Amino acid sequence: MARIGAVEAGGTKMVLAIGDEAGHVTEREEIPTTTPDDCVAEMVEWFRTRDVDALGIGAFGPTAVNPSDPRFGQILETPKTAWKYYDLRGAFVRGLNVPVGYDTDVNVACLGEVVFGSAKGLSNVVYVTIGTGIGAGVMVEGNLLHGMLHAEAGHIIVPRVPGDDATCVCPYHDCCFEGMAAGPAIEHRWGKKGYELADRDEVWELESTYLAEGVSTYVLCYSPQKIVLGGGVMKQEQLFPLVRQKTLKMLNGYLVTPELQDIDNYIVPAGCGGDQGILGSLELGRRALAAK
Amino acid sequence: MARIGAVEAGGTKMVLAIGDEAGHVTEREEIPTTTPDDCVAEMVEWFRTRDVDALGIGAFGPTAVNPSDPRFGQILETPKTAWKYYDLRGAFVRGLNVPVGYDTDVNVACLGEVVFGSAKGLSNVVYVTIGTGIGAGVMVEGNLLHGMLHAEAGHIIVPRVPGDDATCVCPYHDCCFEGMAAGPAIEHRWGKKGYELADRDEVWELESTYLAEGVSTYVLCYSPQKIVLGGGVMKQEQLFPLVRQKTLKMLNGYLVTPELQDIDNYIVPAGCGGDQGILGSLELGRRALAAK
Repeated sequence: MARIGAVEAGGTKMVLAIGDEAGHVTEREEIPTTTPDDCVAEMVEWFRTRDVDALGIGAFGPTAVNPSDPRFGQILETPKTAWKYYDLRGAFVRGLNVPVGYDTDVNVACLGEVVFGSAKGLSNVVYVTIGTGIGAGVMVEGNLLHGMLHAEAGHIIVPRVPGDDATCVCPYHDCCFEGMAAGPAIEHRWGKKGYELADRDEVWELESTYLAEGVSTYVLCYSPQKIVLGGGVMKQEQLFPLVRQKTLKMLNGYLVTPELQDIDNYIVPAGCGGDQGILGSLELGRRALAAK
Repeated sequence: MARIGAVEAGGTKMVLAIGDEAGHVTEREEIPTTTPDDCVAEMVEWFRTRDVDALGIGAFGPTAVNPSDPRFGQILETPKTAWKYYDLRGAFVRGLNVPVGYDTDVNVACLGEVVFGSAKGLSNVVYVTIGTGIGAGVMVEGNLLHGMLHAEAGHIIVPRVPGDDATCVCPYHDCCFEGMAAGPAIEHRWGKKGYELADRDEVWELESTYLAEGVSTYVLCYSPQKIVLGGGVMKQEQLFPLVRQKTLKMLNGYLVTPELQDIDNYIVPAGCGGDQGILGSLELGRRALAAK
């Protein structure tokens, strides 16, 4: 078995792990996300002392994920100014001298779910994280979606739910999915964090309507074989039946497929139980090693 | 050069053509779409007498386009009851005994634009037709998007434009892109067909707002390297600058890419001048022959 390193590079913390091709994680560490100079040197050192054969990185966006892009592996325009245009993948390539796979955090989580989780063996899958933000990782015909950049499907415009007069918390958009439905939107609207509102039915009634707006758009755009919903907000498991039922109601019979007829197995929780990012990064590292 | 047949199977007419791998069309015919028994036999005979080496078909949906689906090549649930579950691809395979490529009309048009048109050489492209309906053909990482079914991105929910009180003409949805912005929606709202309203600025002001809602959602979901807009409604060329400007306004600087900075070359008309469906079908036929 090869020793593979995994990095989940998030805006507030970095999760590091060591594992193998089969998805067994043997060691794990978290460090706060500070500046590239400080925390990348520390991460490189952590992996160097553990002698990895390859590495996979799932990074916060926007970032250049298309291997044919000269900026491949760089963080792009970001409010975190210290990271702007930082060559994150390059730092690990130079520091470790092993094959390094690289993609967005949500694409990597999607890959984790396809290889190890709820979407095992499928080739058209959407993974949505609903947490401090909303992001979608997308696999189409077996390939993670890149393009001009990568999906930024958390920022699609959604119709405001009648009666909801909350301000959209996205600084860019008047009424986008993330700005109306991510964790900070819930806290802004109700004055408390989601987990403190678990027993307030009206909170999840409204939240599930916005989630169904996003999910039905993803069903129509991506035609996935399965949609996996993860992230902190989805720990409120009462959301799943509501989102399923409202998504079907919004589609209103327009699409007739065996998958939608079995909606409980179509819109599902992550099968990796929170480890989809780390497991997907291991798989990315495995693939980078295999392609060497 | 091989002789390749092309079929654009539409709801009202079938366009048949003969051409070669390089996209030269040498003969063309149109017949009305009646019942499968009548018009498919006629089409098979037309190609048989012309001795084609392969065939490509772009079909109206919903239809099974995933080659691993046992229903591959069948028309699925459709209001055109005579066509429901009809094995369109199978009829040509049996009748002609040549390799037959098969996909949706819009995926085929997208392929035509990638191989011969405005999106030449790109691998992440969205082709949108805005005509009697709205449909999106999508290429991701070089592959046409299939999945549970195929994209049905014309039916995404869009926010109603303030002040527009027109009824959505889609029988399934209260306010979907197609129901608010396709040709029949224009006619329903203004009492005349689009081409009769060419000089009415308010028509195109409103139409372009809905188009920008759809296009900005596609940009965020698919991250295409280019978006090609075709179909009858887009013959109103005054729409292009309006859609470009409004799409940028809706994205509001959230995405920073060289492509969006060159918006005139990002949201573009079809380069095949209406022949994207036929040329894409030729390419599908070429690929089916090459894969034989």
